Amino acid sequence: MSIGSTPLLFLHGYWHGSWCWSEVLTHVTSSGRPSVAVDMAGHGLRARWPACLTRRPFAPEALTTEVSPAADIDLDQAGELLVSQIEQIGHGGPVTVVAHSMGGTVLTRAAQLVPELVAHAVYLTAFMPGSGTTAATYLRLHENAGSLVGPALRADPAVVGALRFDLASDDGAYRQQLRDTFYGDVDPAVADAALGLLTPDAPAGIALGATTLTRDGWGSVPRTYVTCAQDRALLPALQRRFIDDADAAFPDNPTAVVALDASHSPFLSMPREVADIIVKVG
Amino acid sequence: MSIGSTPLLFLHGYWHGSWCWSEVLTHVTSSGRPSVAVDMAGHGLRARWPACLTRRPFAPEALTTEVSPAADIDLDQAGELLVSQIEQIGHGGPVTVVAHSMGGTVLTRAAQLVPELVAHAVYLTAFMPGSGTTAATYLRLHENAGSLVGPALRADPAVVGALRFDLASDDGAYRQQLRDTFYGDVDPAVADAALGLLTPDAPAGIALGATTLTRDGWGSVPRTYVTCAQDRALLPALQRRFIDDADAAFPDNPTAVVALDASHSPFLSMPREVADIIVKVG
Repeated sequence: MSIGSTPLLFLHGYWHGSWCWSEVLTHVTSSGRPSVAVDMAGHGLRARWPACLTRRPFAPEALTTEVSPAADIDLDQAGELLVSQIEQIGHGGPVTVVAHSMGGTVLTRAAQLVPELVAHAVYLTAFMPGSGTTAATYLRLHENAGSLVGPALRADPAVVGALRFDLASDDGAYRQQLRDTFYGDVDPAVADAALGLLTPDAPAGIALGATTLTRDGWGSVPRTYVTCAQDRALLPALQRRFIDDADAAFPDNPTAVVALDASHSPFLSMPREVADIIVKVG
Repeated sequence: MSIGSTPLLFLHGYWHGSWCWSEVLTHVTSSGRPSVAVDMAGHGLRARWPACLTRRPFAPEALTTEVSPAADIDLDQAGELLVSQIEQIGHGGPVTVVAHSMGGTVLTRAAQLVPELVAHAVYLTAFMPGSGTTAATYLRLHENAGSLVGPALRADPAVVGALRFDLASDDGAYRQQLRDTFYGDVDPAVADAALGLLTPDAPAGIALGATTLTRDGWGSVPRTYVTCAQDRALLPALQRRFIDDADAAFPDNPTAVVALDASHSPFLSMPREVADIIVKVG
């Protein structure tokens, strides 16, 4: 299989699903490249909704106390699922995997488990945690101070086991806060439709898992990082930190970096540019 | 381009989105075939949500009176969008289009407009209306008597301009009714996740549009109909009626028929079988 026909697999981040890639995939498919977007554990067609969001009458206190039905999902499960998706799509051959945001944590785990099946790892403003370090640890670094994600959460992840948004809220200011967090440069109508498709509970366990990285494992996989300069969810300084940490740990396999002047969601605001970058990666 | 590499485009039905095909696409992509799922006008990343579903406190009367923000979407818009998606994905060459449910009405319009760009039209328990006849007309035929869709609607489409479900309902019996309507043979957890991804307002205008079919237009496009024997939304007798009407109108180009023993949603209950059928079609 030539590099140009290596299948592409797209993995979304927390709260999103396969649906977020539809415009990117339309561009990629028009180039004749086999490609597909999958759902992460606990998301999309694998999502589990808490009852509190749609209870009538609405009981606000349940938002902060109802343990998430996704609370038992962890990085082990998410990584194993991604490995099985890679195996299925690649038919035993290598696949280029594109991960967004928290999807990067899952990609890192999968690439460490089956480095021979990952032709290239593309991190689109994604978590790319160092060896033995959880995504949650990076979230607390000063490089991410000012991220809009934390203030928009409606429950303590340590209590409910999930990073929970109140996606059924009718509070206009809160809905604007969510748009600002993820979709600052996205057409407002598309951003509203995206809010309607999000999963409210992102399983905390994925951010709480760590992966030991080896030179023959994740360290051997070619990687590209696509930075997004206007990102208000995963801040540019943290994106840079991921790249610096990876290059310090595996200097013989440096990160290729491509810059976009986009929000956290270039798959919605500039899908053609995203597709062009990824098709060129290999 | 050989028939085996003709791109595949998947179009969902009312209330659904590109997300519903993710498992089918995983199987199709593993065969090396370029394929992509798109959103219909008014759905997925093009959906428009009514305010009434998430108003706190919930005001049930608004369900039946709020005019849908999708009320102005019609078959002309939906058909033009699909034509543009076909052109983009095919790069000017022909595409095989797979449509589910009300997506079939849109496919019929697009295939009449650009028959040279539709290599094959696949109707998966879909509307395949005859010349000059609306999908709404078929909905009222005795062949569809007993469909579970009508009783699950929560507003008069003539009043609100949409076929509206109360997807934020916490009524267990109503949620079961929706599962029975669409997902009778689907894993209950997957069915629940699907309910969380549906668009509540399907634009009535798509079902109210008709297309004049010609021998050189839609009548010239090879077509396959995949019947679903356990379908409780679009009943088997109505599926048969579509086939009979089409074959009576264009006897020189008869419908190829493939049977599945599935509910309305085989893309969720038997994605591998759906993928196998479609890859073989060409």
